Amino acid sequence: MKHVIYALVQNKSGVLARISGLFSGRGFNISSLAVGETEDPDTSRMTIVVDGDEQVLEQVVKQLRKVIEVIKVQDFSDVDFVERDLMMVKVNAPPNKRSEIMELVHIFRGKIVDIGKKDLIVEVSGPEKKVVAMLELLGQYGIIETVRTGIIAMSRGS
Amino acid sequence: MKHVIYALVQNKSGVLARISGLFSGRGFNISSLAVGETEDPDTSRMTIVVDGDEQVLEQVVKQLRKVIEVIKVQDFSDVDFVERDLMMVKVNAPPNKRSEIMELVHIFRGKIVDIGKKDLIVEVSGPEKKVVAMLELLGQYGIIETVRTGIIAMSRGS
Repeated sequence: MKHVIYALVQNKSGVLARISGLFSGRGFNISSLAVGETEDPDTSRMTIVVDGDEQVLEQVVKQLRKVIEVIKVQDFSDVDFVERDLMMVKVNAPPNKRSEIMELVHIFRGKIVDIGKKDLIVEVSGPEKKVVAMLELLGQYGIIETVRTGIIAMSRGS
Repeated sequence: MKHVIYALVQNKSGVLARISGLFSGRGFNISSLAVGETEDPDTSRMTIVVDGDEQVLEQVVKQLRKVIEVIKVQDFSDVDFVERDLMMVKVNAPPNKRSEIMELVHIFRGKIVDIGKKDLIVEVSGPEKKVVAMLELLGQYGIIETVRTGIIAMSRGS
């Protein structure tokens, strides 16, 4: 099962290594991880997506809480939350295919962020399913490369 | 100096721990990290932002290349690239402030992704500077929480 976990941590060298070690030590593969600064430069916020057994995950969350640089941990399993993923795709786009591709991008409320003679870089954000659907549709033109942030998540309400 | 590095790696347990250990072992603090799946489920793409001395960084990049699960590494220092960051902000938004905030969000081409009685969740993507500018402007209303993906980067051209 896919689990989304958020951790507020001190923005210090070594914290990331410690935390990712906790997961890999238990055999959990982190399928996506986003670590960004917060409004406070001393703290970072991580959104971790892992696949795995619920009971073992509970243990990992407990271990996480014991890490001295970890300020707060939340497992989003039972929480109503908003998730967003951001992707850039470089796609083959010869001039005669450009308008077709731009139409697709428009439907997905994406943006064209760079244009070359034979390719485009497209940016799209949204729930993971939307991002994946966009990638599949662009696949028919030939994907040159992709980069994704991985999911970030925030609970709804106050 | 801020460095943006991209690494294509095998999507395996333990890879992230090894790589983040490489950086922290040299005293580099990773200021942002985004790890997401690619069009190939067996590989992940990491975008790593670190602050630090150029020479030591070169060493770390060399070490990275030696990690068996690392397929490709690129230092974006001398490359023309597009960067994007994605942020969600939960901001105080009593009814009499809502339209003001929505105007701001519109100017930054952001999106309102959730609305509560007294708050809003706003999504904005773009170069890091834009995201930071938006956060500063929203600050006047009172930020409840923020989450950011950290930068993803892609080189321009073919």
